[in-house]
Amino acid sequence: MTVIDFTAFIGRLATASGETILPFFRTSLSIDNKSASDFDPVTEADRAAEAVMRRLIKANFPQHGIVGEEFGNEREDADYVWVLDPIDGTKSFIAGFPIWGTLIALLHKGTPVFGMMHQPYIGERFSGDSGSAHYSGPSGERRLTVRRCASLKEATSFTTSPLLMNAADREIFGRVENSVKLSRYGGDCYSYCMLAAGHLDLVVETELKPYDIAALIPIVTGAGGVVTNWEGGPAQSGGRIVAAGDARVHEATLKLLNS
Amino acid sequence: MTVIDFTAFIGRLATASGETILPFFRTSLSIDNKSASDFDPVTEADRAAEAVMRRLIKANFPQHGIVGEEFGNEREDADYVWVLDPIDGTKSFIAGFPIWGTLIALLHKGTPVFGMMHQPYIGERFSGDSGSAHYSGPSGERRLTVRRCASLKEATSFTTSPLLMNAADREIFGRVENSVKLSRYGGDCYSYCMLAAGHLDLVVETELKPYDIAALIPIVTGAGGVVTNWEGGPAQSGGRIVAAGDARVHEATLKLLNS
Repeated sequence: MTVIDFTAFIGRLATASGETILPFFRTSLSIDNKSASDFDPVTEADRAAEAVMRRLIKANFPQHGIVGEEFGNEREDADYVWVLDPIDGTKSFIAGFPIWGTLIALLHKGTPVFGMMHQPYIGERFSGDSGSAHYSGPSGERRLTVRRCASLKEATSFTTSPLLMNAADREIFGRVENSVKLSRYGGDCYSYCMLAAGHLDLVVETELKPYDIAALIPIVTGAGGVVTNWEGGPAQSGGRIVAAGDARVHEATLKLLNS
Repeated sequence: MTVIDFTAFIGRLATASGETILPFFRTSLSIDNKSASDFDPVTEADRAAEAVMRRLIKANFPQHGIVGEEFGNEREDADYVWVLDPIDGTKSFIAGFPIWGTLIALLHKGTPVFGMMHQPYIGERFSGDSGSAHYSGPSGERRLTVRRCASLKEATSFTTSPLLMNAADREIFGRVENSVKLSRYGGDCYSYCMLAAGHLDLVVETELKPYDIAALIPIVTGAGGVVTNWEGGPAQSGGRIVAAGDARVHEATLKLLNS
C-alpha cells in the first residue's frame, strides 16, 4: 500500500470531524480548562471529534497507531501513526472567530507523509504530502506555493503569542521581531497554511506539541517551504519551531535564534 | 420613506462590494502604503469596492451623503449619509486570514440607523438597526443577542492591538487588561460582531475612524449591547471606543478608564 491510498480516507476523517464540531461552534459551550492558569480550554467538540476520528481509524486501519490531544497515545510504535488535533486554535473557536482548524497527520516510521488542515465552518482544506500541497475551498481548488522573500527585512512574520514563550525564548524571539518588516500575533494553524499559500514569510513559535505541528509539515514543505525546530532539526516532535517560505529567510532566522 | 426600506439596498451594496473584493483576496496584490511608518496598507480591492458602492448609492439616492475611507466625503451634511469601509482588517486581508469585513453604515441626521458587516469569502453577514441584530451565513440565519456578564473579572476582552494606542491610552488600557479574565488581541470588526453574537464581553480600542465603528454600532446595540466612547458619549465619531455586551461590564470599564 502506498501513501497516496490514504488521501481519500483523510478526506473522510476531515468530513466526519467537521460535522461533529460544527454544531458546537458559536454556541454556548461547557468549557473545561486543562489548566486554569494558562487558559487552555478544551471543548466537548474537541473530544467528540477526536472520538469520531479514532473510531474511523480503528475500523479501517486497526494496526495503525494514534496520537491525539484528548485521548492520549495508542500503538505509537506502529509503522503508520495518525496524529490528531480536532481543534487547533481553541481560543479563536471559543470567541467565535473562524480561524481554528482540524489537524490530521499521517506519520510513516516517524516522518509526517501527509497532512491536512480543515476549517469546516468556512469549508476550506489545506493538504500536503511534502511533494506538493493543495487548497480546496470557497475559491475553488489550486496548488499551494510559497512566495519568494530574499531577506528578513522584507519578511512578514507570525507567532501565535509571545506570551506563550518562556522568558528566555521571548528574548531570543525579540531578535527576529526586530529584524522583520512586520511581526504579527495570532493565527495558530492558519499561519502555516497562509505561509504555504504565499501570503506570509515566517512563523516562529515555541512550546508546540507534536499534534500542533505534524499535519502542517507536509503542507509547508509540499508548497516549497522549510520547517524545522530552532536548531534546524526535524520539527515533528514539536517544541520550538521555525517555518519559512524561502530558505534564505529560514537560514537567516536560524542564525539569529542561535547567535 | 422609512429606514427599513434601505435593508434590501444595503444587501445589494454588500453583494456588489463582495464580488469586487473577492478576486483580490489571497492573490498577489499591489500594496500601497498610506504611511510606511505604521503599515496601513490599502489595496486595489479597497478602492474598487468603495467605487462600486459609491456608484450604486449615487444612482439610487443621489441626495444622500457618502463618507468613505478611500475617496473622502461628499454631501456629509445630508439627512442620510452612508459610511463605507470596504475592507476593515486590511492586515488580515493581506496575510490571507478571512477575518476582515466590509462595513456599511447608514446615518440619519448623524445617528447610525443601520449597519452591516459582510465577510464575502466566508459568506456571512451581521446586520443591525439598534432595535435588533441578525446573522446570516454558513450556519443559517438567526437573531444576535449579547451574553450576560456580571463583572470585569468574568469578562473576555478584545482589542485589535495595544500597539495602535498612544502611550497614555495604553497605560489606561492596562487597567482594563489587569481586571478581565482574558485579554486578547486582533479582531477588527469581527470583535464587535462576536460581542453581538454573545461570544465575548468587551472591546476596547482607540484611534478609530468614523468608518471603523459606524456600521458596528447598530449591530452591537441591536443585539442588546452598549457602545460609547471612553467618556460614555456617542461612538459614531470614532476615537476611543468601549463596547460591552452587558451594561455592568460597560459601566465598570468606563469607571476604570476614567479613574
